[in-house]
Amino acid sequence: MIIVMQKDADEGKIRHVIERVEGKGLEAILLRGEQRNVIAAIGDKREIPTEYWLAIPGVEKTVPILSKYKLASREVSPQTTTVKINDCVVGEEKLSIIAGPCSVESMEQTLCAAEAVKDAGAVALRGGAYKPRSSPYSFRGLEKEGLEILAEARRKTGLPVVTEVLAPEDVEIVYEYADVMQVGARNMQNYSLLDELSKFDKPVLLKRGISATAEELLLASEYILRTGNAPVILCLRGIRTFEDHTRFTLSIGALAHLKRVTHLPVIVDPSHPAGDSNLVPPLAKAAVAAGADGLLVEVHPEPENAYVDGAQSLTPESFNKLMGELRLIASAVGREL
Amino acid sequence: MIIVMQKDADEGKIRHVIERVEGKGLEAILLRGEQRNVIAAIGDKREIPTEYWLAIPGVEKTVPILSKYKLASREVSPQTTTVKINDCVVGEEKLSIIAGPCSVESMEQTLCAAEAVKDAGAVALRGGAYKPRSSPYSFRGLEKEGLEILAEARRKTGLPVVTEVLAPEDVEIVYEYADVMQVGARNMQNYSLLDELSKFDKPVLLKRGISATAEELLLASEYILRTGNAPVILCLRGIRTFEDHTRFTLSIGALAHLKRVTHLPVIVDPSHPAGDSNLVPPLAKAAVAAGADGLLVEVHPEPENAYVDGAQSLTPESFNKLMGELRLIASAVGREL
Amino acid sequence: MIIVMQKDADEGKIRHVIERVEGKGLEAILLRGEQRNVIAAIGDKREIPTEYWLAIPGVEKTVPILSKYKLASREVSPQTTTVKINDCVVGEEKLSIIAGPCSVESMEQTLCAAEAVKDAGAVALRGGAYKPRSSPYSFRGLEKEGLEILAEARRKTGLPVVTEVLAPEDVEIVYEYADVMQVGARNMQNYSLLDELSKFDKPVLLKRGISATAEELLLASEYILRTGNAPVILCLRGIRTFEDHTRFTLSIGALAHLKRVTHLPVIVDPSHPAGDSNLVPPLAKAAVAAGADGLLVEVHPEPENAYVDGAQSLTPESFNKLMGELRLIASAVGREL
Amino acid sequence: MIIVMQKDADEGKIRHVIERVEGKGLEAILLRGEQRNVIAAIGDKREIPTEYWLAIPGVEKTVPILSKYKLASREVSPQTTTVKINDCVVGEEKLSIIAGPCSVESMEQTLCAAEAVKDAGAVALRGGAYKPRSSPYSFRGLEKEGLEILAEARRKTGLPVVTEVLAPEDVEIVYEYADVMQVGARNMQNYSLLDELSKFDKPVLLKRGISATAEELLLASEYILRTGNAPVILCLRGIRTFEDHTRFTLSIGALAHLKRVTHLPVIVDPSHPAGDSNLVPPLAKAAVAAGADGLLVEVHPEPENAYVDGAQSLTPESFNKLMGELRLIASAVGREL
Repeated sequence: MIIVMQKDADEGKIRHVIERVEGKGLEAILLRGEQRNVIAAIGDKREIPTEYWLAIPGVEKTVPILSKYKLASREVSPQTTTVKINDCVVGEEKLSIIAGPCSVESMEQTLCAAEAVKDAGAVALRGGAYKPRSSPYSFRGLEKEGLEILAEARRKTGLPVVTEVLAPEDVEIVYEYADVMQVGARNMQNYSLLDELSKFDKPVLLKRGISATAEELLLASEYILRTGNAPVILCLRGIRTFEDHTRFTLSIGALAHLKRVTHLPVIVDPSHPAGDSNLVPPLAKAAVAAGADGLLVEVHPEPENAYVDGAQSLTPESFNKLMGELRLIASAVGREL
Repeated sequence: MIIVMQKDADEGKIRHVIERVEGKGLEAILLRGEQRNVIAAIGDKREIPTEYWLAIPGVEKTVPILSKYKLASREVSPQTTTVKINDCVVGEEKLSIIAGPCSVESMEQTLCAAEAVKDAGAVALRGGAYKPRSSPYSFRGLEKEGLEILAEARRKTGLPVVTEVLAPEDVEIVYEYADVMQVGARNMQNYSLLDELSKFDKPVLLKRGISATAEELLLASEYILRTGNAPVILCLRGIRTFEDHTRFTLSIGALAHLKRVTHLPVIVDPSHPAGDSNLVPPLAKAAVAAGADGLLVEVHPEPENAYVDGAQSLTPESFNKLMGELRLIASAVGREL
Repeated sequence: MIIVMQKDADEGKIRHVIERVEGKGLEAILLRGEQRNVIAAIGDKREIPTEYWLAIPGVEKTVPILSKYKLASREVSPQTTTVKINDCVVGEEKLSIIAGPCSVESMEQTLCAAEAVKDAGAVALRGGAYKPRSSPYSFRGLEKEGLEILAEARRKTGLPVVTEVLAPEDVEIVYEYADVMQVGARNMQNYSLLDELSKFDKPVLLKRGISATAEELLLASEYILRTGNAPVILCLRGIRTFEDHTRFTLSIGALAHLKRVTHLPVIVDPSHPAGDSNLVPPLAKAAVAAGADGLLVEVHPEPENAYVDGAQSLTPESFNKLMGELRLIASAVGREL
Repeated sequence: MIIVMQKDADEGKIRHVIERVEGKGLEAILLRGEQRNVIAAIGDKREIPTEYWLAIPGVEKTVPILSKYKLASREVSPQTTTVKINDCVVGEEKLSIIAGPCSVESMEQTLCAAEAVKDAGAVALRGGAYKPRSSPYSFRGLEKEGLEILAEARRKTGLPVVTEVLAPEDVEIVYEYADVMQVGARNMQNYSLLDELSKFDKPVLLKRGISATAEELLLASEYILRTGNAPVILCLRGIRTFEDHTRFTLSIGALAHLKRVTHLPVIVDPSHPAGDSNLVPPLAKAAVAAGADGLLVEVHPEPENAYVDGAQSLTPESFNKLMGELRLIASAVGREL
């Protein structure tokens, strides 16, 4: 931690800051500069928030040296952590393509999607039984019935099931049916949900909030990781910016950065940022080329009749075509599908 | 709803869209243009999401005519709705200044803050018993003990209590102690929390998410409003932008816009966007001048020793000074403190 | 300058960085930490860009202690600098309200606007003769003829003229006619224009770019200030964010921050961020309440017939009404109109 | 153009709008809805700005049906336009990799870089003789001497030269030396520069402004295209968002969108958004996989000693390695290097 003093902070204020630093068990080193005095606080006390220091009189700004997250850091584990989902392993050379409809609408629609994505080479089925919707007037999912349909699809196809959980009180039932429990972008900082998930031993797929920094995403993952029960897969799905030609802006730089700073596997959802099925393939290809460990893709047997997000859903045919293209790119970057 | 067809959409596609429009009980009018054909869908079916139409082959884009929210719209109620909190009424000529510490730390700290803000003219006490924190390693609040301290502060000062609730399972206990239940920015789209709050009959203070549009904020309010139990007070607290000199960017344009489109009262939190107590007064004054119905201000007896957000907390002295300045501005815009 | 070394940077890399620091005439102090070693580089060498240090092997990140701007800093001049425009002085207790049409369209329109804004209390006339337009197909201004019309309006009303200059080659002619030369948001980093303006002795009104940080705005001002010829007035006019209910997001926090860190006067354009004349008054009031030194407001005798930006232009009547309201707010914050 | 009337707009206002529409030579069709009346204005009058209609009393909002750009639209030319730079053609199956130092520092540095990038397979040399810098205290380029060095590098290697031009008055001299004239992000809306470039017959590489929408970029290209002299190559280089782990956010969605809506070739600069040489390769690979027509990459013989942007410059070795990887990805997407 570096503490920059205000230009006019006198010796009394400087001494006071040094006392506060030492009071926290840190070593304080005063650096006198031409324009500013700076106090270096040496030692690892990441739990003290930056604001603590800013509130001390005479302090102009503080600069953390260490990132706030610990468990998720690649310094803890130089190798990418692999997460097992039944027979599929996320974070290995083989990419994990997870696909299926945005929401579970019926047995027929889900089975049809599950078989199509399996045939095309997907390793897991995605599908929402509980749907977060901006408007209370929109379709909010089949809930328990949806979970049962997903379980049936798993029985028929052997594909493990990835599905979203919205509230702490639903974790238990979703745990019963799902192979991976997904936390959506709106809930990335829903701490009571993260706390609840940390008590269970199933992998959590944690989506980046639409305006979360990389550090905030990693701190959210630590809510789950710190109990040691559930492994975490990170998922990028676009951030909110001024761009208006796509629903969200997919940041490939965030993917590249995360692959450097965390050992957690990182997958990419190309469907939500695209908002238009024509733009899904280029985003999917970019993600694989840049080092994603997998993809989460919306596929619907009849996008035109989808209850939710039809515009960005691929048909089974276009998904199959995309998988062929991805196979070549994966191979070009030393991975495989 | 206006549906713009792709340049090359043929008559078959146009007919198909018209059938889909009529199938939803809307009237379809085809407008043939030089470059594009457009289909106007007439009737009020706001519950059909935009994406529904975009998934139909040949559709290039759709343009909603009506906003998606209904109950929160000023068209429903031309007068600003007033919300009663004990003796204080939010949304009237008299501004509602709600103040207190970011988090409840002890009986002494809370009583001291409560008395100070009351003396300065605040009409309600804010204070967090449950704290959402980006890092799992930060202080997360005194929880039930914090609620009891707030209740004691209310008993001593007569100030009603505004406090945050983080999870559906905590709503019942917070309801027991609080006069207004606050939904923080991170939870604006935590729909299971909003659903739960809609079952109770106490006012909800709903904060705008850091990257929520005005429409998304109003749709979130409708999750609560639609049961008719709980009135809603909106609260602006800054959005996330590229600006790095403040914690968040307070958008006065959003305040001005909301005051035009919704009948709900709108207050402003100048402390969180500032991130620095020196910047709180100008933001507070701007909000009052632009028509806010009240403020939510962080005041701590000893900011330097605050567990949370000390840097942006006003001292009782500076809060008192600010109140004097706000009184003049309020009067200049035909309001009072 | 603080240089944080990578976790695995060995002694050779550390020594190498220390040599580079000393080679630049700075003192290097090595701070050994538990997780990271840090090198403090002491001395004022703001001209060395951050990227210089980042390119040295073993460096993880660098943290500047001093801001990059110098001349614009309030540390240079604790008092707000006043800028004289004929009889009007920007930066004093009396606020400088500059008003007029977005673009000069005709002698009649301009004179009518000039007289109306003078009657309402404006101290200077704004009007564009050279218009920057996103589309090459839009009206681009009357150019020299527009300057002559503005000069005639000054002769008739006595109001000094503020007008935009778009290109280095136009500076000379605009200088001949204008009292203040305005640099628009799109040109804030048009360095050849800034260089050219720095050669002349007339005040420059420098608008913040729509995605410029406060530091970038101040650095842009230093391009002009460093010759000592032209004083600079800063002008805020909204930034680009995800918000879609206004044209741009006016950041009052940026105003508050700038008033603290720079001695240059800062005025606010409430018209461009609003994009809608109904939203101009609340933004104008907020700016005055938060400490702006003046306003730049679009007023058009007949907004419906304006060539440019009619939707956000006030009529003379609504401007007059606004001035009355601003007078009260100015007085509430110890200023006057 | 769709004009949505305010809820309470009476028949007089509706008639008035219809008259204005017809007065502009458009056909007006009135659509009466339950909540709003809507007027469809039929005909192609893209030169009338949206604000024109918004200023008419009773108008709530307007919705353009057609995009504002014309010449750049793919509707004009279904095939991607190819741009010839000496023997290299941008926009064909073979990707155009343009590489070299951020700024020309010396003959030796430039020749060394030119030979290295040629050996690795680059088809053109980039290098800045005129440098736009946020701070007036930073190195601003060798100017004419830099152009001469670039010409010498072309003579020695045969590589055509891409170099930036900052001001209208420099266009003539840059034209004399350069094969492609580059417009930097800060100048994307410097219309006097764009106007000047449109008079010359050399290709212009137009970089997207850091907060420009795709439509604004295409409109800027039309400033150049409308004279028919100079072909345009678009270049994406990252936008400004809240993300703080990279310098800018590279938007692959913008690339995918542009490839659909414009016939102009689109290349990507992975160096500026990365800000860190470690992140350049994943961004470069993503761009190629998503369909970029080429790349603009910073390569410096000794990044540690670069005057500008050393941190994001690749060494010749790492560039050579990247080229090998890109070759595989190009082949996977049906392109070649």
